[in-house]
Amino acid sequence: MQYPSVLATLIRELGRLPGIGPKSAQRLAFHIINRGNQDSQELIDALVEAKEGLARCPQCGNIMDSTAEKCVICNDHRRDQSIICVVEHPADVIAIERSGEFRGLYHVLHGALSPMNGIGPDHLGIPGIADRLPHVSELLLATSTTVEGEATAMYIRRQYETQVDRISRIAYGLPVGGDLEYADEVTLGRAIQNRQSL
Amino acid sequence: MQYPSVLATLIRELGRLPGIGPKSAQRLAFHIINRGNQDSQELIDALVEAKEGLARCPQCGNIMDSTAEKCVICNDHRRDQSIICVVEHPADVIAIERSGEFRGLYHVLHGALSPMNGIGPDHLGIPGIADRLPHVSELLLATSTTVEGEATAMYIRRQYETQVDRISRIAYGLPVGGDLEYADEVTLGRAIQNRQSL
Repeated sequence: MQYPSVLATLIRELGRLPGIGPKSAQRLAFHIINRGNQDSQELIDALVEAKEGLARCPQCGNIMDSTAEKCVICNDHRRDQSIICVVEHPADVIAIERSGEFRGLYHVLHGALSPMNGIGPDHLGIPGIADRLPHVSELLLATSTTVEGEATAMYIRRQYETQVDRISRIAYGLPVGGDLEYADEVTLGRAIQNRQSL
Repeated sequence: MQYPSVLATLIRELGRLPGIGPKSAQRLAFHIINRGNQDSQELIDALVEAKEGLARCPQCGNIMDSTAEKCVICNDHRRDQSIICVVEHPADVIAIERSGEFRGLYHVLHGALSPMNGIGPDHLGIPGIADRLPHVSELLLATSTTVEGEATAMYIRRQYETQVDRISRIAYGLPVGGDLEYADEVTLGRAIQNRQSL
């Protein structure tokens, strides 16, 4: 038996989402068509509104309501305007905000340098950092600890090291609560290099 | 930082899907808003069309295009009209069809008996089985092997055993390719009870 074509299309579209394999896509699709029309409509409305109601902050690139002029963080004048944290994704902003350890502004690249995939500095809005440098004293590079994230951090450092007082990189180390014997050797090595005096 | 409200709504709606926790919902939502408008629109269209374009077959309860009169299986006159396989969900039909071992018709209950949740025989269209019995010689009960699935099979057997030549139940046993030592004891016990002569 073949699926009705509209169901096959829904399964295919759901299967394109990250972390959703063919089995999960089928399960989600059957769940969606089995539940009430009201629930399905709420999901559809949420997707339509997210598609139409979000935009990128013209200053930092973070997501914002499309009716706003700047994102909530750029608009918050109580925040420390002298430090900018550079991250790859809007989700990273959320994660750092949850830590409660950072009160400055952000710059969201929406990716990392990847010459193999044709993603260069211009695609990531890296030149846009220059416009903001006259007002800041520190650039904290919080790109991910992957090869691409490292290369992006190094590129930004080389590009701007003469234009800002301090360029820093988030620390490597053991995750809090992590058991030493389960840490991979590279992380453990970095944790030892970065040891702090007590 | 709070999410823009349309993003919070999208994350909440995605988080209501089965197997999607808060972290996955956030990841999916960021993926959806980051990709092109075209891709988002295709997902939205697929949801809208699945919501509007599917209906239940009036004969067997399986899903079908809403423009059809019967589902593709009920419409296929080459199939064995004398045996009906009773399953809980449309996804079970797909799974059994993939096995290639069944060439009869189906009856889809869209659930299993669950008195605690107020789901009785009428909610599952179990009385509808009676209308089909004059034309069949065997009812194969392929509800799941959970407590509810078993209770549903037992209820249907008691209800219809005088009206049909044979009522059968799918076999319990070890999964093919499964290692004996990893089988749970209940399954292993059933596999021994149901042993076949060679």
